[in-house]
Amino acid sequence: MNTWGRNLKLTIWGESHGPGLGAVLEGIGPGFEIDWDAVDRDMARRAPGSDDLATPRKETDSVEILSGIFQGRATGAPICALIRNENARSGDYTPNIPRPGHADYPSYVKYKGHGDYRGGGRFSGRLTAPLVWAGAIAKQVLTKRYSVEITARAALIHGEGGAPAQREAILAAKAGGDSVGGVIECVAAGVPPGAGEPFFGSLESEIAALLFSVPGVKGVEFGDGFPMAAMYGSQANDAMEARNGNIELRSNHNGGILGGISNGQPIVVRAAVKPTPSIAKEQTTVDLKTFQTISHSVKGRHDPCIVPRAVPVAEACVALALLDALMDTDKEAQP
Amino acid sequence: MNTWGRNLKLTIWGESHGPGLGAVLEGIGPGFEIDWDAVDRDMARRAPGSDDLATPRKETDSVEILSGIFQGRATGAPICALIRNENARSGDYTPNIPRPGHADYPSYVKYKGHGDYRGGGRFSGRLTAPLVWAGAIAKQVLTKRYSVEITARAALIHGEGGAPAQREAILAAKAGGDSVGGVIECVAAGVPPGAGEPFFGSLESEIAALLFSVPGVKGVEFGDGFPMAAMYGSQANDAMEARNGNIELRSNHNGGILGGISNGQPIVVRAAVKPTPSIAKEQTTVDLKTFQTISHSVKGRHDPCIVPRAVPVAEACVALALLDALMDTDKEAQP
Amino acid sequence: MNTWGRNLKLTIWGESHGPGLGAVLEGIGPGFEIDWDAVDRDMARRAPGSDDLATPRKETDSVEILSGIFQGRATGAPICALIRNENARSGDYTPNIPRPGHADYPSYVKYKGHGDYRGGGRFSGRLTAPLVWAGAIAKQVLTKRYSVEITARAALIHGEGGAPAQREAILAAKAGGDSVGGVIECVAAGVPPGAGEPFFGSLESEIAALLFSVPGVKGVEFGDGFPMAAMYGSQANDAMEARNGNIELRSNHNGGILGGISNGQPIVVRAAVKPTPSIAKEQTTVDLKTFQTISHSVKGRHDPCIVPRAVPVAEACVALALLDALMDTDKEAQP
Amino acid sequence: MNTWGRNLKLTIWGESHGPGLGAVLEGIGPGFEIDWDAVDRDMARRAPGSDDLATPRKETDSVEILSGIFQGRATGAPICALIRNENARSGDYTPNIPRPGHADYPSYVKYKGHGDYRGGGRFSGRLTAPLVWAGAIAKQVLTKRYSVEITARAALIHGEGGAPAQREAILAAKAGGDSVGGVIECVAAGVPPGAGEPFFGSLESEIAALLFSVPGVKGVEFGDGFPMAAMYGSQANDAMEARNGNIELRSNHNGGILGGISNGQPIVVRAAVKPTPSIAKEQTTVDLKTFQTISHSVKGRHDPCIVPRAVPVAEACVALALLDALMDTDKEAQP
Repeated sequence: MNTWGRNLKLTIWGESHGPGLGAVLEGIGPGFEIDWDAVDRDMARRAPGSDDLATPRKETDSVEILSGIFQGRATGAPICALIRNENARSGDYTPNIPRPGHADYPSYVKYKGHGDYRGGGRFSGRLTAPLVWAGAIAKQVLTKRYSVEITARAALIHGEGGAPAQREAILAAKAGGDSVGGVIECVAAGVPPGAGEPFFGSLESEIAALLFSVPGVKGVEFGDGFPMAAMYGSQANDAMEARNGNIELRSNHNGGILGGISNGQPIVVRAAVKPTPSIAKEQTTVDLKTFQTISHSVKGRHDPCIVPRAVPVAEACVALALLDALMDTDKEAQP
Repeated sequence: MNTWGRNLKLTIWGESHGPGLGAVLEGIGPGFEIDWDAVDRDMARRAPGSDDLATPRKETDSVEILSGIFQGRATGAPICALIRNENARSGDYTPNIPRPGHADYPSYVKYKGHGDYRGGGRFSGRLTAPLVWAGAIAKQVLTKRYSVEITARAALIHGEGGAPAQREAILAAKAGGDSVGGVIECVAAGVPPGAGEPFFGSLESEIAALLFSVPGVKGVEFGDGFPMAAMYGSQANDAMEARNGNIELRSNHNGGILGGISNGQPIVVRAAVKPTPSIAKEQTTVDLKTFQTISHSVKGRHDPCIVPRAVPVAEACVALALLDALMDTDKEAQP
Repeated sequence: MNTWGRNLKLTIWGESHGPGLGAVLEGIGPGFEIDWDAVDRDMARRAPGSDDLATPRKETDSVEILSGIFQGRATGAPICALIRNENARSGDYTPNIPRPGHADYPSYVKYKGHGDYRGGGRFSGRLTAPLVWAGAIAKQVLTKRYSVEITARAALIHGEGGAPAQREAILAAKAGGDSVGGVIECVAAGVPPGAGEPFFGSLESEIAALLFSVPGVKGVEFGDGFPMAAMYGSQANDAMEARNGNIELRSNHNGGILGGISNGQPIVVRAAVKPTPSIAKEQTTVDLKTFQTISHSVKGRHDPCIVPRAVPVAEACVALALLDALMDTDKEAQP
Repeated sequence: MNTWGRNLKLTIWGESHGPGLGAVLEGIGPGFEIDWDAVDRDMARRAPGSDDLATPRKETDSVEILSGIFQGRATGAPICALIRNENARSGDYTPNIPRPGHADYPSYVKYKGHGDYRGGGRFSGRLTAPLVWAGAIAKQVLTKRYSVEITARAALIHGEGGAPAQREAILAAKAGGDSVGGVIECVAAGVPPGAGEPFFGSLESEIAALLFSVPGVKGVEFGDGFPMAAMYGSQANDAMEARNGNIELRSNHNGGILGGISNGQPIVVRAAVKPTPSIAKEQTTVDLKTFQTISHSVKGRHDPCIVPRAVPVAEACVALALLDALMDTDKEAQP
């Protein structure tokens, strides 16, 4: 469903080419003063049209707050944010031709042909805008209340680690009517030990579930991740030592999480983002009206690589999952 | 928390060395006839003590059904299963010495020293027994009602793909007082298109969240997964074609899921399992009583590699997540 | 929290004097065609300012649909509705003087003084507008899909059963600077047997929980309700008989629900609504600034009796709870 | 469904005549020391067979703790409690003859004839035993951590307020092969102001939902309840005054709750319990096999009045709902 969270509650609604999209966020404590400039900065990092690497669709993504804020502070009631769609060009979309690699075909089946297909509708990456909005607020609560800092970066784009090489890979793909993907790495520093739950509420489960809700994410790993599967236990275990009255780990192969619970080390998570499925190159698909196999080139304005714009989205996912887990630590019944 | 699911509800409780552990499973339709022999077979695949690759702790893992079954069929009420602990040797565990790579230290913080530390307590891999039990039932419903078949295998152990090499790797690690990990691949065949939800309820989110609740899982990927991040869009997209009145895909790079929703192809997911943290080799840790850094060798009976026993656990995770999503497809309000 | 439902999900947000208020409704099946005129009619029944019995605050309560509707039909995605506040006169409200009988004081404590106190803020009866909006849609699904019809009426106002006497009671209270309450009776006809759950999901629990979320409701009873507590079993039991191949009940003392599950009889529920706490008469309260006991007369525009306007609200509560329960009956796993 | 709660999680399972029944309770903080004697006392208050007013079925209702307790204290993990059924006499029940006033017929429809009909199965009042067990623990947390005391009593039995008259009414009904009901009043003293949520999580909603999950409850009211609907606002409002630096109310017409939130006054709630539907007197019902209307007398061992045994059940409902709401007050994100 479209509502997430235990202590926080986040509901996301909207479509790419409808009147607008937005979020309802609950759980921000009464009196919390939100730094709206910082929220805007995160929105701008995700917004389209900022440079030649991204889609030319321009959206200011300006957010109207409809509730939950009074005299500049959170009231404790749900905060509703509305982002109007302004620059939609729906004529670019052909409802009966599902784009390979997109949700078009499975959503056509799921919604029995009644979905809003324009611009990917409900499945558009544009739906990550309200996620970034909510995540930006969560990051502020994490910083002010728990001293946790979250930062993500494009660790790899098309296999390249350096910014110039990444830029080149994107421009080359764009020039060829193609697209590229990459890997985002997100680090949460300052997380105290003891957050998270065993089993169903493991920190890995909570973070991964949010990251896998982001369109295009096909893999999530923590710490050393998949390469850890080829290590010996003696290599993968993080030795502990007493230092200045604290327990510290000599390494962080486990990415700050053991048994689903934070261990005091930075939380390190990586998400694999597939190349944008919308490409200008001809592809083979099916015309749902005629039921013929056809060749098709996707029109519309698309990013040759969504990884740069997805970086604040990953931060938002990690921030929301962490804050929800940390809020759990406040409420345990005690003698 | 310890309850999972939307349409199904699964609650898991118990500790490794307490009186017992078990599960409460809701959502199995009235009249459904469970094949208990098939359930037992899955329990046996996960059970300890079956061969020289696994821990010598022997548990029959026999399940007593306490409710929800009448005259051999599900009644529609919650089914409670109880597995008694029989062969616990709690003397092997030292409460004040957290084992590197284990949940001992973060759980000590979380539970303020009140957790049941014996045998890993709540964090023991033994807690996957009720998960396998529930998953075995879910698999039967999937087969009989939705014609979905789920199978998993140890794709890699310590980097090895073949069974003899895998066995050798495990025995070598065991001989050296060490341990190894691996990668489990699970395939769900026959999943109809249209199951899952965009965003928070994406099939990837649901499956990954369950897999990351399994102790030792540090990575999850779908379809081509992490390598997909280095592909071009033209390589990663799965072309569609009309064949015999159906829409079929020419490849399955996306692992059967697009936009969080099944696309009719087999669902393919891989989980990276880290090497068992309990090893005989000396490791550095902290004595919580004296707050001294010490050298420690983990006693007790442990698997040098949990991957073989985790295979039915992965199947259970995928089965539960899929069944929950497929049950959603039955309930949508229609005109 | 502010999100409700299992199969449906309804999130309500907003304050009485903020920019607006609204709802996000999920679970309406793709392709369902909503009769917006019928929705508007229910909104008008609840809207303020319609006659001399209600508050003179006039709000058109016109609803803007922001998502989830495409080409006149539900897409299956969340439907977001926005109602702007237009006729707010916040000057009438004094933040430091909690009105007796209102949430002012407990919400001041809960939100640590940061709540939006204007017009009752989050606690205003105005928040029932989005509830009526969602309920109006639920009623349409109930009618078209399940042949269930829901109607409510003001059974009693200040103890009076007849419309002229009720009107007189309200006008007399108004003239005296006072207010009156009443009892709303709601009947759901055509509910098939078998909807609802034992225990925590009993139909009574679900309906009552929603009704008790409506400001001013202090009692809920089903069938013969409280008087049933003084009957003999032989009087209270509803005898069954076979009639035309159906099982029918000769009476409906239990209000259509047995063991939490519908029994095929009309569901009959009554809600006791207390007199509007906002009255012109002098009352004793505390000035939170000076911490002095003072005498206070509530200004602002208020209903001398909210019962007439609460009738469609009660219908909405019953409709939402019933639809959620009926959707459960569609999804049970079957052999 | 059969799992309840936000901060607490309570799952109840079992049937009247199956192997056993029980509960899984989460959310009790690590280190909390449970007074098991006090739990047993509450279990004994609810247990059958204690005097001539109750069913002669004797069950010791002894509870086995399977998890979540270590060294005499809660570990923070789920606590599973098992109560074995010992004295079941299933021969008394006729599956094809639904008893008037019972869930037999609607549950037959809901579960398609597969329910465990013996002794009412899932719908038996016996299922309140695990509720009392969980409530007894919740009461201890409320007392020790929040200084809240909860007590209930049989305010009325068959309209009688005094104990001897109540006893007489029950014995007279029993002698006549009939049954009587009553009203339970429960008071929670010491509840601080500010607990509960507006709308969907109102204290009234939470408490009523649990009370309506108890078999036989047909009405719930708070404070002055239904009679409040006939008052004037000037009568029903509770005047406030400053006293010794506190804000106190001069009356408690609202039963300690305003706008869904506690106001510092004792919470007062009443539940109407219908007369036991199982009576020896002949009643008219339908034989589901022959589909003939027949006359039937219910055999088996039944209470002529369940109100005395339901008193600790009502306390449990109020305790669980209140503790869940109070735990919310611990977790709000703050600057």
